[in-house]
Amino acid sequence: MSSLRNAPGRRRVIVENVRPSLDGGKYPIKRVIGDAISVQAAAFTDSHDRINVSLLHRLTGSSEWVRTPMRSLGNDEYEAEFQPWEIGLYEYAVSGSIDHFGSWLHGFARKAESGAPLEVELLIGGDIILAAAKRATGDEKKHLLKFGKSLKNESKSVNERIEIARDEDLKWLISRIVDAKLEALSPIYPILFERKLAAFSTWYEYFPRSCGPDASTHGTFHEAKNRLYEIDRMGFNIVYFPPIHPIGKSHRKGKNNSLTPSEFDVGSPWAIGGKEGGHKDILSELGTLEDYKSFIQEAASYEIEVAMDIAFQCSPDHPWVEEHPEWFKWRPDGTVQYAENPPKKYQDILPINFETEDWENLWQELKSVFDYWIEVGVKVFRVDNPHTKSLAFWNWCIIEIKKEHPEAIFLAEAFTVPKRKYNLAKGGFTQGYTYFTWRNNPSEMREYVQELTQSEAKEFFWPNFWPNTPDILHEDLQVKNRATYMGRYILAATLSSNTGIYGPAFELMDHEPFPGKEENNNSEKYELKQWDWDKSGNLKDDIARVNAIRNSHPALQRTFNIAFGNSDNPHFICYLKQNFDRTDQLLIIVNMDWTHTQSGYVHLPLDHMGIDHNQSFSVRDLYDPSESEYTWRGHSNFVKLDPKVSPAHIFKIRHL
Amino acid sequence: MSSLRNAPGRRRVIVENVRPSLDGGKYPIKRVIGDAISVQAAAFTDSHDRINVSLLHRLTGSSEWVRTPMRSLGNDEYEAEFQPWEIGLYEYAVSGSIDHFGSWLHGFARKAESGAPLEVELLIGGDIILAAAKRATGDEKKHLLKFGKSLKNESKSVNERIEIARDEDLKWLISRIVDAKLEALSPIYPILFERKLAAFSTWYEYFPRSCGPDASTHGTFHEAKNRLYEIDRMGFNIVYFPPIHPIGKSHRKGKNNSLTPSEFDVGSPWAIGGKEGGHKDILSELGTLEDYKSFIQEAASYEIEVAMDIAFQCSPDHPWVEEHPEWFKWRPDGTVQYAENPPKKYQDILPINFETEDWENLWQELKSVFDYWIEVGVKVFRVDNPHTKSLAFWNWCIIEIKKEHPEAIFLAEAFTVPKRKYNLAKGGFTQGYTYFTWRNNPSEMREYVQELTQSEAKEFFWPNFWPNTPDILHEDLQVKNRATYMGRYILAATLSSNTGIYGPAFELMDHEPFPGKEENNNSEKYELKQWDWDKSGNLKDDIARVNAIRNSHPALQRTFNIAFGNSDNPHFICYLKQNFDRTDQLLIIVNMDWTHTQSGYVHLPLDHMGIDHNQSFSVRDLYDPSESEYTWRGHSNFVKLDPKVSPAHIFKIRHL
Repeated sequence: MSSLRNAPGRRRVIVENVRPSLDGGKYPIKRVIGDAISVQAAAFTDSHDRINVSLLHRLTGSSEWVRTPMRSLGNDEYEAEFQPWEIGLYEYAVSGSIDHFGSWLHGFARKAESGAPLEVELLIGGDIILAAAKRATGDEKKHLLKFGKSLKNESKSVNERIEIARDEDLKWLISRIVDAKLEALSPIYPILFERKLAAFSTWYEYFPRSCGPDASTHGTFHEAKNRLYEIDRMGFNIVYFPPIHPIGKSHRKGKNNSLTPSEFDVGSPWAIGGKEGGHKDILSELGTLEDYKSFIQEAASYEIEVAMDIAFQCSPDHPWVEEHPEWFKWRPDGTVQYAENPPKKYQDILPINFETEDWENLWQELKSVFDYWIEVGVKVFRVDNPHTKSLAFWNWCIIEIKKEHPEAIFLAEAFTVPKRKYNLAKGGFTQGYTYFTWRNNPSEMREYVQELTQSEAKEFFWPNFWPNTPDILHEDLQVKNRATYMGRYILAATLSSNTGIYGPAFELMDHEPFPGKEENNNSEKYELKQWDWDKSGNLKDDIARVNAIRNSHPALQRTFNIAFGNSDNPHFICYLKQNFDRTDQLLIIVNMDWTHTQSGYVHLPLDHMGIDHNQSFSVRDLYDPSESEYTWRGHSNFVKLDPKVSPAHIFKIRHL
Repeated sequence: MSSLRNAPGRRRVIVENVRPSLDGGKYPIKRVIGDAISVQAAAFTDSHDRINVSLLHRLTGSSEWVRTPMRSLGNDEYEAEFQPWEIGLYEYAVSGSIDHFGSWLHGFARKAESGAPLEVELLIGGDIILAAAKRATGDEKKHLLKFGKSLKNESKSVNERIEIARDEDLKWLISRIVDAKLEALSPIYPILFERKLAAFSTWYEYFPRSCGPDASTHGTFHEAKNRLYEIDRMGFNIVYFPPIHPIGKSHRKGKNNSLTPSEFDVGSPWAIGGKEGGHKDILSELGTLEDYKSFIQEAASYEIEVAMDIAFQCSPDHPWVEEHPEWFKWRPDGTVQYAENPPKKYQDILPINFETEDWENLWQELKSVFDYWIEVGVKVFRVDNPHTKSLAFWNWCIIEIKKEHPEAIFLAEAFTVPKRKYNLAKGGFTQGYTYFTWRNNPSEMREYVQELTQSEAKEFFWPNFWPNTPDILHEDLQVKNRATYMGRYILAATLSSNTGIYGPAFELMDHEPFPGKEENNNSEKYELKQWDWDKSGNLKDDIARVNAIRNSHPALQRTFNIAFGNSDNPHFICYLKQNFDRTDQLLIIVNMDWTHTQSGYVHLPLDHMGIDHNQSFSVRDLYDPSESEYTWRGHSNFVKLDPKVSPAHIFKIRHL
């Protein structure tokens, strides 16, 4: 006798191809709270029986499914939506079962038409209802019993009983009573419903240690508070500091990554850990844990959240090196292997060995770092180079944290090959850095944004576009041209609903290129800086204008609602952003020639816009301080942009 | 502490997207023995370490994997093939692990180039080799130990040791020693390697009961043997009889599906079961079990296999009805529900209720029917209407049988919606009937064949094209036109490597249409027939010619090796069939206007053919009894086909 273990047995419906889903349910897809998720699946059975197909969903850990009937799309395809009202890790599945009553009713109707005898048929129908009543409870049971008995009551006329069989209440009631023994269930798929900030965030990175009174005095959390007013005025909603932990002394780097620091050099904040402690401790020069909490509270009063930079690596002085030597790779000469990313060398940083046999303690300890700071009040984490740590670790760590703290947000700083970047996102990272910086003409940019927004990646990878970082100063920005800076920022801030800058270098255009590299000279990574926060010619008002547009326009608060137009001028990039009901429509046109006036026709995706080809409409430039307005018609319209005046239009569309 | 159960732990490689595969490994893909299967997968790790990626395969049930290194295709994609030498149910998976030695060697080379000190590096390399030696056995262990010690032997010069590190034998040896604790494995996917007959079969259906000496005498297996010589001469390699079991008497049908049979009526062979027995018994009028075995042996002497028609349904007289009343649906009036396929009614047939609570016994009993006949010597089954029985049952039943009897072949007679047809094939059915019959012009036919051969369906669905069956007489064939019959047969036999006819009605063009239906009047399903086996004007020689071409041309022995050409005449369909190395290339052109001469240019897929656009080539018509030959050049060539002469060219291509 062959084994029947795991056989579906009496379950006669096949459910297949549940979409969207990732890797057979190994990884969650993502949605933002308030948005519905639309799920499709194929379902069918042998024979001519009718089937009931339902979408099930529940918060992971709950035992009760919420059931939504799926509607037929034809060709054995079904569709339904669900929309939970609280964030969290959910799961969904598709259920299929034979609709015995519906099948009977359908056959009954045909027999009634053909004039066949109906007495026995009515008894069969009554029995189907009574069988459902057996599985029901409470009022449902009571009503079904009544219906079933009426159908079998031969003292009523056949016509009377036909009326009962067709009762809409009966149809609805019986559709709710599924026999679990006959119900086929698809695999179960996970989905993360994230909070709004996860999908719409505007990051501002700065070094608190550069907030001191002068270039030789280490700044503090307390002094960093002074910047919050301006950061808020510019419209950012997340501030993020480089690591705030004790910095190692062994192999400390000097200015410009020098191997021969002076005794006054402050070192790289990413060389984490010293005698004072490690990843759960604070560099005393910045202040105390209480000072940090106070900073978080002050930021919260502006409705700004504080992001922490988590870098899982250690200075040679980190307590883990002594306490857990097995977490590091030791060389035959008794030294620990330092980090390398050829040709870059990080002599002040030891990587963690994820192949350690002690991996269980390692994973728990690393996760406890997040748990500790979440307890302190941090809900947003920027994770440094996650792609050089075990990808399976991140998947476990983030999903475990999300189960307890669905509000936690993780930004992956991973400039790496696509599959690795995407795997981090599938594994749970909320947002990811991108190649935005290196897309420097309209065709490259368009192709890249289409890959991000039109491919399967949109189900799990939420991009975050940064024009600059402390590590990356693209040659475009090495020339301090206002149009380049604002053009790049407008692109970042309107192509992606998640964006950020490394300030104040950005808004002050105070970058100093390292000769021959895409890096900053005299980088803040290795030294204290003193910024002229109000330097003349700064971009603060321009940035504030862009962010104010973001903050007041739902169309810019999602990334995937984009449609590109075309232009006969190859320097123009043109795209439409709109919300689902088209009540907010913005048309962005950027002249990516940062130094010359360009003009030409742009060709708009009028069908996406719901605008007839002969209909006039108004476009008002929200980025222009005087908000110029034009009346346009048809899909081709003329545009001229002088970078000395403005690199871009951000048009609000009004149907006339 | 969060649970680490099922976490990948020290396994740092991610393996994803293994292709081809079906529904996450729920169903097997199919290949024919002698063909290799090419598998692709994505694999990557964190960091810059190199990885080893291998394709693993084994016969299901075996504990040992066969390991094939996969080659990189770039962008973290890998590929390899495997090709087993015996048929069976196999499984495959992709393994990924860090290539510690390769990673070290790569870094070592860069350090050597840069002039860095190498002493410590050599010790590290030696340790990696010694660690691998620990896991190795026998000679491999011995050699690795030697390599490792040499690398660490400081009495040798650095240059000498560098030479050792670069030894090709060492590289090969160490790549074979995978540390299972660090090895990441994809899910495991099943694949069926089928025997040749599964992919290349030519079926001939006939009723043994019509092989008697006259129309009123029931024919026998013994008499059916007399047809084998002709069937073989026509080139068929499977003969198949309708069910050979006892036929019920209750509600027996008369001629033309009549409900009022005479006492002499023989009934439908599909009304299975009577006092004499059920699915494991033989209708005594046909002969004994020994007679049936003798028929199988006689067919085998022609290298023809005998297919059995399995119909899981019962006449009211079937022993199961009394022995297992719970396997049927009883009505409140004490009768059993008979089968219906509105508007068709099968009063003589009771369907089986797959929702019975006794499903385990039912499944085992049904499977035992196959087991019984396999024991008798039948290896090929044509399954009647499988789509009206539980799909999950078929999946279990066929896969279980395949584990013991991979030589068993199952043809699904399922004219139903695509998802159901495809599910039967995924579930294990070797071949499936198709909509071929209802594709009656070149554009419909081409679209249909492209769906079958270019979509994912090609991984699991092997079509079988039949111009006619006892149930289906398309209106095209109701007009007894030689060109139509041979045109349809040439299409079936060259578009699909699996084909069949219901004879002798087909080769004698002895169909009598039922008025207004796609069915035969006075159908053999309900009565004995006497055929004039040598009727003048028969198609036997023409069919023999087509089948001889099939039997001698590998290009026609596969279905998926097709490329379509075009024509400026919409009545022409034109396609290339060729084997993998292009040593056998056939070009088929059919004039699907069965009554008028058509001419025009055909445009050939020269690139597929490996023929230059200026190169001449010869085409010789194998179907033409005089084998006319023409010299063609370029991708457009003129064709004229008069259906009175021939509906088609089957050109053999010869490069000049």
